[in-house]
Amino acid sequence: MVLFLIGLGLYSEKDVSVRGLELIKESDFIYMEYYTSILGVSKECLEKFYGKEIILADREMVESEFEKEILEKAKTKKVSLLVVGDPFSATTHVDLYNRALSDNVKVEVLNNASIINSCGITGLSLYRFGEIISIPYFTEKWKPFSFYEKIKKNTDMELHTLMLLDIKVKEVSEENLIKGKMIYEPPRFMKISEALSQLELCEDNLKLNIINKDTKFFGLARVGAPDQLILSGTIEELKKVDFGGPLHSLILVSKMHSIEKEMYEYYNVNNKTRSI
Amino acid sequence: MVLFLIGLGLYSEKDVSVRGLELIKESDFIYMEYYTSILGVSKECLEKFYGKEIILADREMVESEFEKEILEKAKTKKVSLLVVGDPFSATTHVDLYNRALSDNVKVEVLNNASIINSCGITGLSLYRFGEIISIPYFTEKWKPFSFYEKIKKNTDMELHTLMLLDIKVKEVSEENLIKGKMIYEPPRFMKISEALSQLELCEDNLKLNIINKDTKFFGLARVGAPDQLILSGTIEELKKVDFGGPLHSLILVSKMHSIEKEMYEYYNVNNKTRSI
Repeated sequence: MVLFLIGLGLYSEKDVSVRGLELIKESDFIYMEYYTSILGVSKECLEKFYGKEIILADREMVESEFEKEILEKAKTKKVSLLVVGDPFSATTHVDLYNRALSDNVKVEVLNNASIINSCGITGLSLYRFGEIISIPYFTEKWKPFSFYEKIKKNTDMELHTLMLLDIKVKEVSEENLIKGKMIYEPPRFMKISEALSQLELCEDNLKLNIINKDTKFFGLARVGAPDQLILSGTIEELKKVDFGGPLHSLILVSKMHSIEKEMYEYYNVNNKTRSI
Repeated sequence: MVLFLIGLGLYSEKDVSVRGLELIKESDFIYMEYYTSILGVSKECLEKFYGKEIILADREMVESEFEKEILEKAKTKKVSLLVVGDPFSATTHVDLYNRALSDNVKVEVLNNASIINSCGITGLSLYRFGEIISIPYFTEKWKPFSFYEKIKKNTDMELHTLMLLDIKVKEVSEENLIKGKMIYEPPRFMKISEALSQLELCEDNLKLNIINKDTKFFGLARVGAPDQLILSGTIEELKKVDFGGPLHSLILVSKMHSIEKEMYEYYNVNNKTRSI
């Protein structure tokens, strides 16, 4: 019948739109994708709010059984797929949308806030951002530096760079994978300080002269939540801050115009007069 | 007491978040900014849905009397400022936010969908967009081509370019302005075909070799509305389409990866098998 792709926004059960809530309540099946981002409230909290049961769709399900399970159901029933933030802010969901359309399943999309626009609270103009970068967790053996070269392109054009930090949910360690043991590691969310250290490692290796001790950043934690924390400063300044729980994001600031500069100063770690 | 900056989303009264609606209902004063974008429903429809009166804040008010009127009230009362889309998707609102913070007015921001993320429905990866461009209405005497040079930077980096098309609400004609007559012209919303013609004029003048008869675009009309229309094609192909009522946006497509190509073909004006 129909697949509703519903963005939940960034923090609480009440960040869904009024229409989104209506569609969820009239759905026969409700799936929730929970491996590309996380909400600030639990599945149980959402279930209580909706008065409905939620089936968690992890990476395995979405990438392997999605067509069979969700799309088959959506051919005859009303099925909601809930996505934290906005449905299209992760490439995975574009892929899902594509698969649904190819299968002639009617899809209704309900957009919502994502970090891509919510980061506008920094005062940086959303018009002056370049390509968005994802920073993956480096491992002992795997240190892909390619994202750092993309930042170079943005800074060369004097555009800001939003950096989304890695999330590991229901991941299996390499060791266990080799042994064939599907034992899930505890969830991990890259911290601002970890991302900054990885950026330094990139600069040390690639010598692209993108970041130095004066480079300006914004650190953003839990945007949209009552305890969101947004601070600007240098690498050294931001590394000293405990930004608390997930999710964290980072913005490398390029050339700023006057309002942007004022807002940067307002959010600066050294600004003692800030009210929020 | 507090200023709520509330994004309404893109189309109907029900695109506001559940929490946004709660805050609106408990506000003492509700202002709505209505000159940088428009919703698909009327002020009266919103008032009925909220059970509250809305004061329309036009450009004059926001740019001149805002501090006095809205910020003064927000010092002792709960005041909502409603913004179509997301509060930070127009530079004006960053400015307002900045003014409120400087004045020590507590501000709570409720983000929502904006065209900046909702355009992800095209299938183009939101990560692969460059600087966002606004295309202003050219006049007889005023043809600013500078936005076209920005597009060049994006295409050089193989990034897509989202183009927001001009809106003229409560504008006074140059003729009347000279005469001192504050007579407002009827609202105007730039059409996709008009934007494409202006792009051709830019290319003819600047010869930057950005667009030609094979250049790929997406035309987007009324994104988020039940009658949204999204089509891909060349300038010639899209110019022939009647995209209907406002708002229109345009995307200049750069190099695409495989899913993007599939979605481009799906939305193509010549695809007769498309179900939506």
